[in-house]
Amino acid sequence: MEIKTYLNEKRLVVEDALARYMLPAQGALASHMESMRYSLFAGGKRVRPILCLAAAEALGADPQPLLSVACSLECIHTYSLIHDDLPAMDDDDLRRGKPTNHVVFGEAGAILAGDGLLTFAFDLMSDYSLGGLISDGDRLRLIQIVARAAGPLGMVGGQALDVASEGEMVDFETLRTIHGCKTGALITASVQAGAIVGSADDKQYASLTSYGEAIGLAFQIYDDLLNVEGTTEELGKAAGSDADRDKATYPAFFGVEGTKVKAQEAVEAAVAALADFDQRAEPLRELARYIINRKR
Amino acid sequence: MEIKTYLNEKRLVVEDALARYMLPAQGALASHMESMRYSLFAGGKRVRPILCLAAAEALGADPQPLLSVACSLECIHTYSLIHDDLPAMDDDDLRRGKPTNHVVFGEAGAILAGDGLLTFAFDLMSDYSLGGLISDGDRLRLIQIVARAAGPLGMVGGQALDVASEGEMVDFETLRTIHGCKTGALITASVQAGAIVGSADDKQYASLTSYGEAIGLAFQIYDDLLNVEGTTEELGKAAGSDADRDKATYPAFFGVEGTKVKAQEAVEAAVAALADFDQRAEPLRELARYIINRKR
Repeated sequence: MEIKTYLNEKRLVVEDALARYMLPAQGALASHMESMRYSLFAGGKRVRPILCLAAAEALGADPQPLLSVACSLECIHTYSLIHDDLPAMDDDDLRRGKPTNHVVFGEAGAILAGDGLLTFAFDLMSDYSLGGLISDGDRLRLIQIVARAAGPLGMVGGQALDVASEGEMVDFETLRTIHGCKTGALITASVQAGAIVGSADDKQYASLTSYGEAIGLAFQIYDDLLNVEGTTEELGKAAGSDADRDKATYPAFFGVEGTKVKAQEAVEAAVAALADFDQRAEPLRELARYIINRKR
Repeated sequence: MEIKTYLNEKRLVVEDALARYMLPAQGALASHMESMRYSLFAGGKRVRPILCLAAAEALGADPQPLLSVACSLECIHTYSLIHDDLPAMDDDDLRRGKPTNHVVFGEAGAILAGDGLLTFAFDLMSDYSLGGLISDGDRLRLIQIVARAAGPLGMVGGQALDVASEGEMVDFETLRTIHGCKTGALITASVQAGAIVGSADDKQYASLTSYGEAIGLAFQIYDDLLNVEGTTEELGKAAGSDADRDKATYPAFFGVEGTKVKAQEAVEAAVAALADFDQRAEPLRELARYIINRKR
């Protein structure tokens, strides 16, 4: 299987579903809807929903009825990017090669676009279209896992710590906490969500969680690396911006070559976590390898 | 029954539960937790959680096991205030007589405090401590009702429309949409949440929804009135700020006396909606009357 073909196919499935779920931009609230759609359809890789779908498929489940859950993860990810880019945060004008949300819709519009997407994600997760595939209890469990991963002890907390550490060369333990909360938590939760919808047993759930944690780590390590090595054109955002801000990164601790080794180790740990899975987990394995071969 | 005594008792119950649910401020994320706690414990009236508890009690249910749901409504309300006060939005420095969140924790800190509280609300709503009192399916229904009320077609959308209409004397229909979405939706959802946890039948649910919509309207009409008539000291925020901004308000359309009549009519509609309820709905009735007798 060619992973790029797989990613492309799944990306289209996710984007088709997102287009159906997202509320139409009409009436008095048209501009607000437009601001959410702008960032949601700004060319994301859809890694989190695809991880969710791939995890369910690895367990032999048909992911079609759980598209709303997969889409909700992309809504949460997109909201986090909109808020991270705000002038009060990273103050980035460019994201995926396009003007950031606040550049187009203003600061207030961007804050509210993020708020709207985050809230809409929970609307999607609690949507009855999923009924029947998994129990209501499992769906509640899924909502709580995602809420915790995205919340004060997860993604939001990681971003708060990142902002608070700006211009400060934090110690490695703090860097790990920032990475783990800010990026790792939602990636892990995306895999866990797929595991729940695929009706994973306890052992499978634990294996998929280990896989999710490992690729979450690989993802952030490799992002640090891209920020050092990539060009602005390749990244679709300002290259070298971490070093400009004196941000603590893996390359700052381990050098570029040492960081590549760490990323490779994380990918191997991810693949190893899936040892008991059959060929249906191949997309998950390929996805792990792809993380450290992408350009952005 | 003295409504002030009732409100005070319930407020203490809610605040005690909030203090238990809210994550402790320790470790690397201490500052973020502190920023959420700051606004959550800044002296709110706890109207939404109390409405939720009172609606459940009106149906004869014991609200104790549903405190997490009631608290989640206050988290959502508090997040909305933090974001509304931001420099990019209403740019208010004072709220409930205290410096607003961004004045104390900076803009980035305040945006993230809001994001954290909103996300944490869904963690609380999906919490298993509620298990058993209502079915998992009803809990999912409750989550979706709250998410919709707080989301792009509800509170966030209303705020977006409000911001977009700034400095513009919008027509009455738009004012109604702003009010209904921004304030009415979450108040109605608070009553509906209580109705679900109190196992309301369809007719009871419809009556409580009507009640919620009517008091939501009364609340916003009276807020407009307070903004015109109250003093900054009484309000705990800048008085007359709506007129300063050329905001469309009820008094701008109906004058002060006409607005008082509208508020009174909304309260009467709320009480009338509860005609089929017995004396256990007395707190809800008194609450409706209290709305247009409060000072802030």
